[in-house]
Amino acid sequence: MHAIGIDIGGTKIAGALVAESGEILRLERRPTPAGDPVAIVDLVVELVRTLADGEQVTAAGIAAAGFIDNTQSIVYYAPNINWRSEPFRQHLSELLPGIDITIDNDANAAGWAEYRFGAGRGSTDMTLLTIGTGVGGAIVTDGALLRGGFGAAGEIGHLRVVPDGLPCGCGARGCIEQYGSGRALLRMAGEIADAGLIGHNLAEARAANGGVLDGPILAALIDDHDPAALAAVRQLGSWLGQACASIGAVLDPQRFVFGGGVAIAGDLLLDPIREAYLAHLPARGFHPEPQFMTAELVNDAGVVGAADLARLHRGVTERSR
Amino acid sequence: MHAIGIDIGGTKIAGALVAESGEILRLERRPTPAGDPVAIVDLVVELVRTLADGEQVTAAGIAAAGFIDNTQSIVYYAPNINWRSEPFRQHLSELLPGIDITIDNDANAAGWAEYRFGAGRGSTDMTLLTIGTGVGGAIVTDGALLRGGFGAAGEIGHLRVVPDGLPCGCGARGCIEQYGSGRALLRMAGEIADAGLIGHNLAEARAANGGVLDGPILAALIDDHDPAALAAVRQLGSWLGQACASIGAVLDPQRFVFGGGVAIAGDLLLDPIREAYLAHLPARGFHPEPQFMTAELVNDAGVVGAADLARLHRGVTERSR
Repeated sequence: MHAIGIDIGGTKIAGALVAESGEILRLERRPTPAGDPVAIVDLVVELVRTLADGEQVTAAGIAAAGFIDNTQSIVYYAPNINWRSEPFRQHLSELLPGIDITIDNDANAAGWAEYRFGAGRGSTDMTLLTIGTGVGGAIVTDGALLRGGFGAAGEIGHLRVVPDGLPCGCGARGCIEQYGSGRALLRMAGEIADAGLIGHNLAEARAANGGVLDGPILAALIDDHDPAALAAVRQLGSWLGQACASIGAVLDPQRFVFGGGVAIAGDLLLDPIREAYLAHLPARGFHPEPQFMTAELVNDAGVVGAADLARLHRGVTERSR
Repeated sequence: MHAIGIDIGGTKIAGALVAESGEILRLERRPTPAGDPVAIVDLVVELVRTLADGEQVTAAGIAAAGFIDNTQSIVYYAPNINWRSEPFRQHLSELLPGIDITIDNDANAAGWAEYRFGAGRGSTDMTLLTIGTGVGGAIVTDGALLRGGFGAAGEIGHLRVVPDGLPCGCGARGCIEQYGSGRALLRMAGEIADAGLIGHNLAEARAANGGVLDGPILAALIDDHDPAALAAVRQLGSWLGQACASIGAVLDPQRFVFGGGVAIAGDLLLDPIREAYLAHLPARGFHPEPQFMTAELVNDAGVVGAADLARLHRGVTERSR
């Protein structure tokens, strides 16, 4: 049966009617009424009603950044929406009778979509790292999404890689997010250019942009195989590979999948990740090695995953009746 | 139905007949014929036959240190027995017709016992760290043992806490095993004594033991609240708490349980662990905090867990017929 997935982002809310195959049948996008939680609830309700119109839909999954409790009901904390311990599921259920609502962390929803319909297909244990502005994560173990005892598992960006390292937005220090994210890549590229690496065009491109290095400029330089840009990607990949060695010791996934804007670099990023992983792997050679891949579902992974998780949850609820 | 658990250690092999309640009904111990894999197989077979004698036993679980594949059949690597890619389950099944055999990592077996019958009871997500000579681990998520894609999950001792840190026996560097194990505690205590901390008796006790600081001496000093010994325990606890903050970001357990010889220190160890955990926790205050506890099943956790895992595996096999 079709299900609905809604992805509440910081700037836009996407909603989709999704088939069991993962195919998107209808897609709607609206600007996020940021800072207005009541308007967000109204908008989600409107999107679900619009997408469900004329369909036999009984399940809708909502994905949002933040901590969701392990009954998929309460938003403990959502940075984009300014929510604290919000009983979001109950609100929506009252407004949408007949539709089973589940709430999920947006990275978990995207990771689940990747596992079911993308690069994770055919594995049982997959770890997704989303390399965007920050580092997000989602973990699938033995075919199920790992949610954790309080619903906050998979916050891989806050694995610490350097004691007393760079301060992180989470309040701790030395998190991989500060060494393996898109923002870290920009910082590293700038440092490498400042250090005077020969033969690069990064400093010039930056100067032409008013002294600011941003994502599109760096992406173009990576495309051109600019030495400073590539050195930064290698440095980023090395940190990520080192983090993967620690994650491997704990979780032992068959596949590491990399999503987010930076993953577009493909093998330029995956090669140094693999290399650093092997160099830092405990007990190397004593068990099979995982695969390193880029994500297949780039946009819309959130809505597809949220819909599929809602459908699964609905199935579990049905069976337990 | 009763099941049999066998725990192959480096110096002894323990075997037990275990009730569904976790109670040990019969217990046998033999010296390990170390370095003689054939004699080990013979001894395991003899133990299973002895323990099963006169009982309706259909399942036996064998626990051993090392990497076991995720079908619980093949020992990829067992340091104590010098095995490499050994089809142990098949060998035993041929010699023990009518008994379902499963092979498990010894730390996983002990962790499962703790989850089912010890400090993990009543939780759904528990992480066990065993602080012995090294640092072992076992992870339970959503009520199931986390085995990983290749069967090697839960190697928490090889989570890296220091880039380019102390070399580890696994071939990597900076693993928590080098900062949070019993061996690390001895090293730290010696360093603190050497640094001339005032008012301590550690240097004297060490000198009286021919210049060697060992576990029993340090345990006695901790018991006496010797300042150098306590400073070392605090240092150890701080590293373990920092590692738990990273583990918490990835796994989000409700409980951290500490087993192994060093855990006998109780709150002297747990207090600095908690303190360091909170100081290094990402996004502190935005979701519930886990509990930190010491293990309840000290000896025999391996045989109890191996038996229970074998019984569960047997149940799954039965149902899928």
